[in-house]
Amino acid sequence: KTLVKVAVARGDGIGPEIMDATLRILDAAGAGIEPEFIDVGKAVYLSGNTSGITAAAWDTVRKNKVILKSPITTPQGKGYKSLNVTLRKSLGLFANVRPVMSLSPYIHTHFPEMDLVVIRENEEDLYAGIEHRQTQDVVQCLKLITRPGCERIVRYAFEYARAYDRRKVTCMVKDNIMKLTDGLFHTVFDEIGAEYPDIEKDAQIIDIASARLASRPEGYDVVVTSNLYGDIVSDIAAEIAGSVGMAGSANIGTDVAMFEAIHGSAPDIAGRNIANPSGLLNAAVMMLAHIGQQTVADKVKNAWLATIEQGFHTKDIFIEGQSTRAVSTDEFAAEVIERL
Amino acid sequence: KTLVKVAVARGDGIGPEIMDATLRILDAAGAGIEPEFIDVGKAVYLSGNTSGITAAAWDTVRKNKVILKSPITTPQGKGYKSLNVTLRKSLGLFANVRPVMSLSPYIHTHFPEMDLVVIRENEEDLYAGIEHRQTQDVVQCLKLITRPGCERIVRYAFEYARAYDRRKVTCMVKDNIMKLTDGLFHTVFDEIGAEYPDIEKDAQIIDIASARLASRPEGYDVVVTSNLYGDIVSDIAAEIAGSVGMAGSANIGTDVAMFEAIHGSAPDIAGRNIANPSGLLNAAVMMLAHIGQQTVADKVKNAWLATIEQGFHTKDIFIEGQSTRAVSTDEFAAEVIERL
Ligand SMILES: CC(C)[C@H](C(=O)O)[C@@H](O)C(=O)O
Ligand SMILES: CC(C)[C@H](C(=O)O)[C@@H](O)C(=O)O
Repeated sequence: KTLVKVAVARGDGIGPEIMDATLRILDAAGAGIEPEFIDVGKAVYLSGNTSGITAAAWDTVRKNKVILKSPITTPQGKGYKSLNVTLRKSLGLFANVRPVMSLSPYIHTHFPEMDLVVIRENEEDLYAGIEHRQTQDVVQCLKLITRPGCERIVRYAFEYARAYDRRKVTCMVKDNIMKLTDGLFHTVFDEIGAEYPDIEKDAQIIDIASARLASRPEGYDVVVTSNLYGDIVSDIAAEIAGSVGMAGSANIGTDVAMFEAIHGSAPDIAGRNIANPSGLLNAAVMMLAHIGQQTVADKVKNAWLATIEQGFHTKDIFIEGQSTRAVSTDEFAAEVIERL
Repeated sequence: KTLVKVAVARGDGIGPEIMDATLRILDAAGAGIEPEFIDVGKAVYLSGNTSGITAAAWDTVRKNKVILKSPITTPQGKGYKSLNVTLRKSLGLFANVRPVMSLSPYIHTHFPEMDLVVIRENEEDLYAGIEHRQTQDVVQCLKLITRPGCERIVRYAFEYARAYDRRKVTCMVKDNIMKLTDGLFHTVFDEIGAEYPDIEKDAQIIDIASARLASRPEGYDVVVTSNLYGDIVSDIAAEIAGSVGMAGSANIGTDVAMFEAIHGSAPDIAGRNIANPSGLLNAAVMMLAHIGQQTVADKVKNAWLATIEQGFHTKDIFIEGQSTRAVSTDEFAAEVIERL
C-alpha cells in the first residue's frame, strides 16, 4: 500500500504530547500515512525567524499538500506573526470547517441534541492583519472583505450542507452596522443561497445569533460566517457541547488542506501527560477522510467514541454524576487503540 | 418636588408598548420625572431624514441630558444611519453598562449563580462606521482604537468595580491577532489595572472568553471590552441568564446619559400587547439611580422582582416546570404596579 506523505507539526506546549498520542493511534489503526515532521513554532520564532516556519518546512508543506498540525505558541511581541494565519493565507486555505456535536450523556452538556458545523471564512476580515498607527494615540486595523472571498465560502457552505445531508445554512454577520462589508457577505449569501432551493436559509445578526447559539444550539445546522465571528462562535459551540478540547477542524484550500485542533497550546499544562488529544485526533479523522481513507477514519472515530462512551477521558473533561475515570494522555490513547 | 425632564423616545416595533408600560410603572412609583417625547426613528427616517432624529429632538436631548429610549427600527438601505450609534457618538456616551443577573429559579437558566456586568466601549472600533469600496469587489471597514478611548472605558470599569463592590475585572480582546489595536486596549488595561491593587484582573482572548462566558458565566464579574465584542458578549450573557428581553443598559457620557433595553424593536410581534417591558424597565431603574432617585429606583426594582418571583412573565420567557402565567404587556405592568 502506498503511504500518503503528511507534513506534521508537533507544535508547542501540549502539542508534542497530543501529536504523539494521535500518531500512535493512527499507526495502530493502519492509517496509510507517512509523517514528515516540519520545523515550525516557538523554536523557529526564537531563532530569529519572525514567521515561525523554516524554508524547508514550506517545501515539505507545498510538496505534500496535507498538514497535520498541533497548536503553536507565538511569542509575545509585535514582530512575531501568527503562523496559523500565515499558513491559512499563504496556502489559500479559505474554508475553516469546525463540526461540533454533543456526546451526551458521556460528555456533560446542557444541549444533548446539538449537532452543527461552523464554516468560517479563513483568509479575509480583520485577520488580514493590516494595522497601522495613525498618530501616537490612534491605531487602526483594516477589515477587508471581497466578493470572491464571500462567494467561495458561501458556496462551500451550501455544497457542504448538500454533501453531508444538512438541512439549513445560517449566515451570521453584523450588516446593520457594517453595511458595505458585512452587507456584501449577506448579499452574496442571498444570491448563492437562491441556487440551493433544497436548503433552508437564515440570516441573523451576530450579537443575537451568538446569544441564541449559546442558549439554543439545537436550532443551528450549518453556520457560515466571516473569519472573526467564526473564531468566536466555533469556540462557543465547542465549549457548550462539552469542551473546546474535543473539537477538530479542517482548513481547506483548493490545493492544500491543514488539520488541527481548535484549542491552543496550553503551555501551563504542557509536559504533564494530562492534555486531551481528542481535538487533534478528530482533526486527524477529518484528514483521513480528506485523503480518501474513509474506512480508517471511521475505525478511529468509532474507537474514540467507544472510549468516551466507556467513561474514559482526560481530566479537563467534566462528567456529572457518572462513574468515570480521568486518565493521562497516554492512557487515553492506549484505550482508543484497544478499541480499534 | 421638582421633576427631572427626561427626553423619551417611544421607538418603533414593540417600542411604544413597552415604553407606555414602563412610564405607567414609573408614574405609579412616584418617580420625579417629566417625560418630553422626542421624534426619532422609523417615521423620521422615512420622511427623508437619514439620521432618524429631528433637530427639535436634538435640542430636547441636549437640554435634558437624560434619555430613556425604546428600540428603533432602522430601515434597510445604505443611506440610513443607525440612530443608536449616532446618539452614542454624537453625545460622547463612551460607556455602555450592561448588568446581567440570574433570577433563578423564577426565570430558567443553567447558571443560577451568574451575576456580571459587561462594560462595553461605546464610541470606537468598527462602529465608527468608516467603510469604503476599494474596487468593485473589495470593501473595507476601519477598526479605530484610541488610547484616550481605551483609558476612559478601562478606568470606568475599575471605578465601577470599586463603587459596586465587585472583585474582578476581565478584559476581553483578540490581541494575538490585532497586536496594535486590541494590543493597545490590553496594554491600557494592564497600566490602569495596576492602579487598582484591590481588584483582581484577568485578560482573556475573545474567542475562548466568549466560550467560557457561555459555559461558566459564574466566573465573570466585571467584563471590560471593546465595542463589537461587547455587543456580542452582552447579548450572550443576557440570553443565557434567561433572555435578552430582561436586560437594561446605560449609555454613559460625561454630560449626557441614555438608558435603553438591549434588545431590538421586534417588529414581528409589535402591537400585540405581548412584548416584555422588563428590559426597558430595568433601564429606567438605572436611569432613576443616575438622576439621584435611588429610593424610587429600588421601589420599582423590588416590585418588578416580586412580580417575577410570583410567577408573572410575558410569553417570551420560558419557565421550566413552574406553575406560572404568561400575561400581556399591560397585565405585567399592572402586576408590577400592584407590588410597588
Ligand atoms: C491561534 C489563533 C490565531 C487562531 C485564530 O484566531 O484563528 C485560533 O483561535 C483558532 O481559532 O484557530
Ligand atoms: C441596534 C444595534 C446598532 C445595537 C448595537 O450593535 O450596538 C444593539 O445591538 C445594541 O447592542 O445596543
